[in-house]
Amino acid sequence: MRRLAPALLATLLPLAAHAEEAPKTVSSVLATTTGADWRGLEPENTLVMELPSGRVVIELAPAFAPLHARNIRALAREGYFDGLAIVRVQDNYVTQWGDPKEGEPDARPIRTAESALPPEFLVKDAAALPFAAIPGPDAYAPEVGFVDGFPAARDPKTGEAWLAHCYGMVGVSRDGPESGSGAGLYAVIGHAPRHLDRNITVAGRVVQGMEHLSALPRGTGPLGFYETAEQRTPIATVKLAVDLPEAERPKFQVLKTSTPAWADYVEARRNRRDGWFVEPQNASDLCNTLPPVRPTPAG
Amino acid sequence: MRRLAPALLATLLPLAAHAEEAPKTVSSVLATTTGADWRGLEPENTLVMELPSGRVVIELAPAFAPLHARNIRALAREGYFDGLAIVRVQDNYVTQWGDPKEGEPDARPIRTAESALPPEFLVKDAAALPFAAIPGPDAYAPEVGFVDGFPAARDPKTGEAWLAHCYGMVGVSRDGPESGSGAGLYAVIGHAPRHLDRNITVAGRVVQGMEHLSALPRGTGPLGFYETAEQRTPIATVKLAVDLPEAERPKFQVLKTSTPAWADYVEARRNRRDGWFVEPQNASDLCNTLPPVRPTPAG
Repeated sequence: MRRLAPALLATLLPLAAHAEEAPKTVSSVLATTTGADWRGLEPENTLVMELPSGRVVIELAPAFAPLHARNIRALAREGYFDGLAIVRVQDNYVTQWGDPKEGEPDARPIRTAESALPPEFLVKDAAALPFAAIPGPDAYAPEVGFVDGFPAARDPKTGEAWLAHCYGMVGVSRDGPESGSGAGLYAVIGHAPRHLDRNITVAGRVVQGMEHLSALPRGTGPLGFYETAEQRTPIATVKLAVDLPEAERPKFQVLKTSTPAWADYVEARRNRRDGWFVEPQNASDLCNTLPPVRPTPAG
Repeated sequence: MRRLAPALLATLLPLAAHAEEAPKTVSSVLATTTGADWRGLEPENTLVMELPSGRVVIELAPAFAPLHARNIRALAREGYFDGLAIVRVQDNYVTQWGDPKEGEPDARPIRTAESALPPEFLVKDAAALPFAAIPGPDAYAPEVGFVDGFPAARDPKTGEAWLAHCYGMVGVSRDGPESGSGAGLYAVIGHAPRHLDRNITVAGRVVQGMEHLSALPRGTGPLGFYETAEQRTPIATVKLAVDLPEAERPKFQVLKTSTPAWADYVEARRNRRDGWFVEPQNASDLCNTLPPVRPTPAG
């Protein structure tokens, strides 16, 4: 395979700053990462939801939603979610969970956590966030990229940044203009509903076990809400990983979105070069560029 | 609500050419459509797949893939798919169906249809297609829009157009650089994998019953293939609507993508104005703008 002069390569592949060989594939980039290219989940920021079919692992995003992350931790610690249910599955949209009796007299009380919070729809001064932009254009925002593995958008004119509603992102249900409390949460299970961006608080991302949320029967009521108790999937428990015995904590790593390996990964997603593809796109939209997650290697 | 002068409104809402009132919502636009804003499905271009959980209705796209549409009709008419199975469900990607024994000595023979076809990855001269562009930008193509209800992209420089891999779009499985035959098909069940555009033949769109494909258990083998016969969902039959008795034909209509009502719909999707939203996006990407489908009204 013909080698390209480094200067020419830099022109063709500005993201692949460290590339010296021929263009790389997603597989070849991941195969050559080292331990330093990955980061583990912080047990204090990791939720573990146990469903009948298996475990859902959610990484919280306190950099974007500090009040909600703190409140969701408090809700988990008081056992708020234990025994509640998946209440809604709307095809190509969201799976939502919480108290089926929310708003009714016998709804489950919130004991230690806050029951309402101010909106955290966006970060007003995002200068301190380690925003790693990817090439655009994006249909919804002037600039898109990743902050510590979370898909985000940014407006250089206002200095604001916000999390983007990609597949697997976890948001906080709300009814009125105020934000919710985190007692009702949802995960995106379809094409990214980016029209929700900046309209609701996004608090994290499912990093493992999406299939336990995405493959559920769709609700038959309006907006995909289930209509009977029998249709709902029960939640056994939602706990913080830090509160689990060490052996039971989820052990996964997310590819860092700040390294040369990440730049190579983005470029390999933009131009698929394994044999099957005949037409590279020179494009990969934000939600098709989510960082991969792997089990933490032994040792 | 304050009325806007028509001239000002035209500036604010260039797509809503016929709007005279205040900005409209998705619901209000749909509520004011007339029968002329909708088109029925052509029975000759409509596939009906019967699964244990219910019916999946697929509209074929002969304008983009005439050879594949013809061959899929022939496959349905010879009963090729009857008794075959869903063979693969990969989360956030595709559900695929066909012969679990494909490539093996006892694979089901194709009797009347072609067993291989030339690629129909794109239309080289798209000037004759009724392309209705929507506002960009799009991450993958210079121009995007709809052709008779199908999401598509276009390159004005080359004159080419192609179908886009949005949620619910149906493509033709292939292994090598040649196209398949239609004996193996897939539907998109996650965020639009637009990197597949122009790399594979797209032959239609699921217009009803997506939940019968999207809520299936994910396959546990590589690429989401099922590993045992028991895991697969059986296909009872796949028939063309035109071959069904009149009373059994699916009766649905798709919003036409060529009318003032469509322009209003696109604008209402771009700027959600129902009370819940606080921040309209002035954006709606191609795959978030798919035309709605409704049961054909009685009479």
